[in-house]
Amino acid sequence: MTRRLLSEVVLPLLRNPILDRLDDAACVALDSRDVAITTDSYVVNPIFFPGGDIGKLAACGTINDLAMQAAEPWFLSLGLILEEGLPVSDLRRVIRSLAEVVNPLGVRVVTGDTKVVERGKRSGLYINTTGVGMRRQGMDAHVSRARPGDAVLVTGSLGEHGIAVMACREGLRFDSPVESDVAPLWGLVSALLDAVGDVRCLRDPTRGGLAGALCDIAEASGTCIRIRETALPIRPAVRGACDMLGLDPLNVACEGRAVVVCPMASADRALSALRSHPLGAGAALIGEVVAEPAGMVVLDTAIGGERIVTLPAGEELPRIC
Amino acid sequence: MTRRLLSEVVLPLLRNPILDRLDDAACVALDSRDVAITTDSYVVNPIFFPGGDIGKLAACGTINDLAMQAAEPWFLSLGLILEEGLPVSDLRRVIRSLAEVVNPLGVRVVTGDTKVVERGKRSGLYINTTGVGMRRQGMDAHVSRARPGDAVLVTGSLGEHGIAVMACREGLRFDSPVESDVAPLWGLVSALLDAVGDVRCLRDPTRGGLAGALCDIAEASGTCIRIRETALPIRPAVRGACDMLGLDPLNVACEGRAVVVCPMASADRALSALRSHPLGAGAALIGEVVAEPAGMVVLDTAIGGERIVTLPAGEELPRIC
Repeated sequence: MTRRLLSEVVLPLLRNPILDRLDDAACVALDSRDVAITTDSYVVNPIFFPGGDIGKLAACGTINDLAMQAAEPWFLSLGLILEEGLPVSDLRRVIRSLAEVVNPLGVRVVTGDTKVVERGKRSGLYINTTGVGMRRQGMDAHVSRARPGDAVLVTGSLGEHGIAVMACREGLRFDSPVESDVAPLWGLVSALLDAVGDVRCLRDPTRGGLAGALCDIAEASGTCIRIRETALPIRPAVRGACDMLGLDPLNVACEGRAVVVCPMASADRALSALRSHPLGAGAALIGEVVAEPAGMVVLDTAIGGERIVTLPAGEELPRIC
Repeated sequence: MTRRLLSEVVLPLLRNPILDRLDDAACVALDSRDVAITTDSYVVNPIFFPGGDIGKLAACGTINDLAMQAAEPWFLSLGLILEEGLPVSDLRRVIRSLAEVVNPLGVRVVTGDTKVVERGKRSGLYINTTGVGMRRQGMDAHVSRARPGDAVLVTGSLGEHGIAVMACREGLRFDSPVESDVAPLWGLVSALLDAVGDVRCLRDPTRGGLAGALCDIAEASGTCIRIRETALPIRPAVRGACDMLGLDPLNVACEGRAVVVCPMASADRALSALRSHPLGAGAALIGEVVAEPAGMVVLDTAIGGERIVTLPAGEELPRIC
């Protein structure tokens, strides 16, 4: 629905070559520098969840959209929409979480805006963060660059953010609680790019989960992504929660993971670079890029079958990010 | 309240020299270029009003925040938060309005984001636009630069945006309807800067109206701004509506006007440059900068008295922008 809305209502009126790439961040040239710009609104409900809150999520989400462009995050803007009645202590806690992400990384919030609206139903707070970053010279990690023979990696276990938020919202309890994976990925990506010169694509599996990220890559590059179910790092608690909620873990959002595509010859180097970083300890090779069927994502299942992986039709549960 | 919230809750956690300027846009250095970054969320209610809508408002507001930094608008991001049930025709109309502002100016929307939230009470749509622009080389129009002896100008009549929105919301009708003044000001500002080399300050009288803009200048520059009530360009319909609604026209928001401070010797040149532009036809010299009482705005009233102009305490009616 959102895709149709964009392609039918928004894009025809605002068309330009940068926007038409429809990437999560735009890359523009400012004199000699390649600059990346990205924007995201965060409407997650509830605003506090195991492992994070809307402030940490906003900072990480925007930093990660820049990181996926091989861009070092430099500046953030912060737009707050507060509902009347939001406790000031909640706002302080959220801003502190955001600060605890950006300050150690040297990312500066340089401008902001605050609006107050009538009391609503639940959330109390929306955040927009727009990020500006500097791309690595000559580096392009666009989803269209995958080639047959490439390796497909993920930097860690899947689905924890989405499950943490949904379980919190639905009041579910697990024996081993699931915490959101939300984390800022520039350090990890930077280490990867230092170690591997020929990374082809970077994509964070946020809305639409791993399935969404892989479908984007397959479609944009005109290749087929083939992944192995047995290779997917999914924690038992996430599997259990997905069973209970009727969700496919491939569709569940992560907010601290990346999909990495690189030539198979560089896969070992990429894996060891990722695993040397605390945020990449769970990195895994999950499949490869092949030629056919072009534009498709195929899962080799644990029991020896195969199935086509598709985008979740109608988002399973909204307001995860 | 918003100011206290910022200074007590947000700023202590995110402090840096750029943010601490607390301007409507941040100025950052990217290699040899001075870049301005600004962000605003728009929550105006209703989303359509005489003379504009939330799309036109978002485009103009962000362009104007850049223009007030003497920065040519280059790039915009567009974050949409839609409430369930918003008619697609409304969204299309809003995006068309935004496009009709940015496209002729060559301002490019380079990245965006769309979120959908539960159905709310009225508005159906919030927009965040973040803008990136290039500042004129060596130009600084910060509010702290006003000096005793400077002239204070406005580029046109006051209060039409706020009155148009409030009248629409309250269902008021006037003999001569008031339309919002919302307009993109970069062309006007650019013409002014071409004609007058020593512009000191630029400020758009949005939230808080003329009073807010002048108080910001007086406070930041440690001067006194002295204005003459008889010199203020306020249309009779706006005066009438203010009387009816119990508002001071000095506090009512404009979205297509600027306050200009320049040396008195340049005031005639500035006025004629402004008046040569369609958006500055109603420009007027409204007062001057003096030394004392520092930090204050003083109004010489029509009947020969004087009064201190203060910021509106508790914003009179929310969701004007």
